[in-house]
Amino acid sequence: MTAVRIIEVGPRDGLQNEKQVVTTATKLGLIERLAAAGVRHIEATSFVSPKWVPQMADHAEIMAGLPKLPGVHYPVLAPNMKGYEGAVAAGAKEVAVFAAASESFSQKNINCSIAESIARFEPIFAAARGDGVQVRGYISCVIGCPYEGPVAPAAVADVAQRLLELGSYEISLGDTIGTGTPATVLRMLEAVAAKVPTGQLAGHYHDTYGMGVANVHASYQFGLRVFDSSIAGLGGCPYAKGATGNVATEDVLYLLQGLGAETGIDLDKLVDAGAWISEALGRPTQSRVARALLAKRAA
Amino acid sequence: MTAVRIIEVGPRDGLQNEKQVVTTATKLGLIERLAAAGVRHIEATSFVSPKWVPQMADHAEIMAGLPKLPGVHYPVLAPNMKGYEGAVAAGAKEVAVFAAASESFSQKNINCSIAESIARFEPIFAAARGDGVQVRGYISCVIGCPYEGPVAPAAVADVAQRLLELGSYEISLGDTIGTGTPATVLRMLEAVAAKVPTGQLAGHYHDTYGMGVANVHASYQFGLRVFDSSIAGLGGCPYAKGATGNVATEDVLYLLQGLGAETGIDLDKLVDAGAWISEALGRPTQSRVARALLAKRAA
Repeated sequence: MTAVRIIEVGPRDGLQNEKQVVTTATKLGLIERLAAAGVRHIEATSFVSPKWVPQMADHAEIMAGLPKLPGVHYPVLAPNMKGYEGAVAAGAKEVAVFAAASESFSQKNINCSIAESIARFEPIFAAARGDGVQVRGYISCVIGCPYEGPVAPAAVADVAQRLLELGSYEISLGDTIGTGTPATVLRMLEAVAAKVPTGQLAGHYHDTYGMGVANVHASYQFGLRVFDSSIAGLGGCPYAKGATGNVATEDVLYLLQGLGAETGIDLDKLVDAGAWISEALGRPTQSRVARALLAKRAA
Repeated sequence: MTAVRIIEVGPRDGLQNEKQVVTTATKLGLIERLAAAGVRHIEATSFVSPKWVPQMADHAEIMAGLPKLPGVHYPVLAPNMKGYEGAVAAGAKEVAVFAAASESFSQKNINCSIAESIARFEPIFAAARGDGVQVRGYISCVIGCPYEGPVAPAAVADVAQRLLELGSYEISLGDTIGTGTPATVLRMLEAVAAKVPTGQLAGHYHDTYGMGVANVHASYQFGLRVFDSSIAGLGGCPYAKGATGNVATEDVLYLLQGLGAETGIDLDKLVDAGAWISEALGRPTQSRVARALLAKRAA
């Protein structure tokens, strides 16, 4: 059995785009159900200013309410030193920082160049070393950018190398707008793998154009063993209203089980967790596996 | 450029499951729009008894109304000799016959064994040789069966070989319940390719568990160059109400374009065709590509 690690990003990456208020109890209810399904890595919240992301204003309450289970990890997003300090004060043992592979995206979303954004992470990495906190590096727009179109694989490789040198234990490669196909994903992975060991790479794919599962499969064939995904496909796509965002965890798990990979996650309980949050948010699941299995249960 | 042939099955395989009445004009309107998008192979209708499939009772009117365009083919389903005769009388130049790789499915859906169902096709093949009509063989349940679960690759290979020997110019391999993953699809293709040349195989995948695009990709890597798909994902899944059925043509085309394959189809016009029929049927498209591109147009 090939072991694969799934990083569930729904409670953070998924819910941060929600317009409606999601209560702390609902978020914790989702996290509890994910952990009960065997998910071992759950991105719990973001230590970002509530001015920018009001949905994540309850980050300290979330951290305080997390189920304490052996072997279950709760990474959090920490976009700057203030966020890092808040995260560690709240008990985080793992944080994630976020850079873009596209200059326009970096300027429009982080208000600085890629190089500047990475330089700002230096004190976080330095502090994390002293605190014994692990840092994961996210790269967005690894295939395409909503402002400048196709992104050069070499640009992704440069950012990945820089994040590795700073001390990231893992680099998550995000196809933020979901335009990647197995062909462009493989070209990108080849360029990045020349700079960062494949074992330290994660695939973070969006299903906006229906390519999420195929891109996970192509990356698995390439050798990746870590994938980010979102329960019920939570999150949507901020660049195409009504379109799909993060690939659904249920669908990724179905694929991985079919490939004979072992994740430790129970598909039926995962579908339960997705059905629960979809009902809480009052919207249909974006997972096709969930739709099929729930239909079979109802039959 | 690698040439890939897409067989659009929406007007037949998709619409045959529709509960609401779809007028002949609507069906022809869809076919016209598909042809205008550059689709060269459109399964137009089924010459089956209106007692069994009332939605296809207008098969002769459909044939009479088809746009006559150079290079555009309109295969039709002909489940028995009576259907074959009706199809040819209506002007069909290509028919498709249908066998299952699962005995239970054959018994429950065709009321006879696999061997009996194939024997019944013999007069069709004989007549088609005389009439200069091409016959395509469909095999259903090539991965799993709703009644007996996993289907042995060897069973699929046997049916495929038999349909080839009878004179099928191509064998379409249908994952009717959509449970296949790239691993099971490849095992099936390896078994079948030992009996039938890869160039005479087509992949007909369902997206019920979100694996449709990944299975097309895996099959393309294996060497398949013909894929069946349904505009807007028309068709649903008779075995899981509310679940997805045929993989959407828009999503397959997006994948193939990304892989550098040439189909002759214009994606924007294809999205138009899918949006038109979805609106006519009063339901959302099942194509993620269509959702993303329509959202971008509306922005």
